[in-house]
Amino acid sequence: MWRASVLTIFPEMFPGPLGLSLAGKAMASGLWSLDVTDIRDHATDKHRSVDDTPAGGGAGMVMKADVLARAVDAADAGSRPRLLMSPRGAPLTQSRVEALAAGPGVLVLCGRFEGIDQRLIEGRALEEISVGDYVLSGGELAAMALIDACVRLRPGVMGKEASGLDESFSAGLLEYPHYTRPAVWEGRPIPEILTSGDHGKIDAWRQDQAEKLTRERRPDLWAAHQKRTPGGLKKPPKG
Amino acid sequence: MWRASVLTIFPEMFPGPLGLSLAGKAMASGLWSLDVTDIRDHATDKHRSVDDTPAGGGAGMVMKADVLARAVDAADAGSRPRLLMSPRGAPLTQSRVEALAAGPGVLVLCGRFEGIDQRLIEGRALEEISVGDYVLSGGELAAMALIDACVRLRPGVMGKEASGLDESFSAGLLEYPHYTRPAVWEGRPIPEILTSGDHGKIDAWRQDQAEKLTRERRPDLWAAHQKRTPGGLKKPPKG
Repeated sequence: MWRASVLTIFPEMFPGPLGLSLAGKAMASGLWSLDVTDIRDHATDKHRSVDDTPAGGGAGMVMKADVLARAVDAADAGSRPRLLMSPRGAPLTQSRVEALAAGPGVLVLCGRFEGIDQRLIEGRALEEISVGDYVLSGGELAAMALIDACVRLRPGVMGKEASGLDESFSAGLLEYPHYTRPAVWEGRPIPEILTSGDHGKIDAWRQDQAEKLTRERRPDLWAAHQKRTPGGLKKPPKG
Repeated sequence: MWRASVLTIFPEMFPGPLGLSLAGKAMASGLWSLDVTDIRDHATDKHRSVDDTPAGGGAGMVMKADVLARAVDAADAGSRPRLLMSPRGAPLTQSRVEALAAGPGVLVLCGRFEGIDQRLIEGRALEEISVGDYVLSGGELAAMALIDACVRLRPGVMGKEASGLDESFSAGLLEYPHYTRPAVWEGRPIPEILTSGDHGKIDAWRQDQAEKLTRERRPDLWAAHQKRTPGGLKKPPKG
């Protein structure tokens, strides 16, 4: 079973959103498991301290290498990757999510305070992963996002109807626009082609829309997509 | 007061993690407020349907423009930006977070299922925002991340000790490494310079580390930083 181990000073945040909806149902069905370690349980002083002032001075507090190391060791990652949610990390991508989902699970350490002692990152070979170029108050929401993204790709989690094959990033493109009833809403009709019944034309329209959206909004993704698609080099239209 | 309005079919996920830790304390202190709309309350059939099959066929279900529009209108965004969490959106950045935090608040629509009717996005001028290049089972965790990132920057939320001035992205750079006691851990000493007491040298070392880390890990951020820093063009060392 795919297993997520989370290390946090806010164990009461879990499972939280992960216990509801798709991930929650999958957990209840035994498709994945979650265990949460309270980092404070691995402190050794009577105040259960997990942090101390930064060497060299400065704002904030730094999480202690010795306490965190005991928590990481106790959580027993086994062959699972040991991840540290951090804005300094490699940006999480859907292909990384796919790789993590295909493995045995993850151990995720959630940082808090100003940061964590660099020696812990090196001494326990933690892989820093960032969910985006912004700063959260802690790694917990980032860990939940990473776990949610992985769990939904596990076999049996999404129904046949809602596969992950046809969505943003699955082909390196943003997803085409969707429409559903009513046929006309506030004077806006569903694009005619979608009600034509011509599935070849519908597929071509969707592909075209996905490419157009990606070119316009994410030139970075579009450039990467162009490189990957063999013989599929197309010049973006000018203007 | 900074106000977050969230529209979701999983209202029970909120406040969840946002009710704890930094954001939770700030909410309890009246520094921001959260209201949650259950989108299903705006359905009109007896099954409280919020979705329907996609026009043109395909996997998944699409959230209905008419139901969502009623929910958006009822939530009364006022002058606040109306955001839709979506992997098709503009990637969230710390500077966007700063701008949102400086405003009156946000209205955030959380997508679910395959997607939402494109006409709703256009008809209600929703701004699509992405928390990263991966796919979540819904927009709820993305909304929480966005709100958490904003709330921590509101006046009075972080203590003086833990300011947001000296962290990743605040100067367009990743953050330098941190250390705290013990002086030696598992044979690894704290870098000598940090215990020298020479604050000029410490600041220079930290700046150098932040630049080195950014160059190595995020050439994209480094290039943008180089462009922004007047007279600060430095060539990255080779090799």
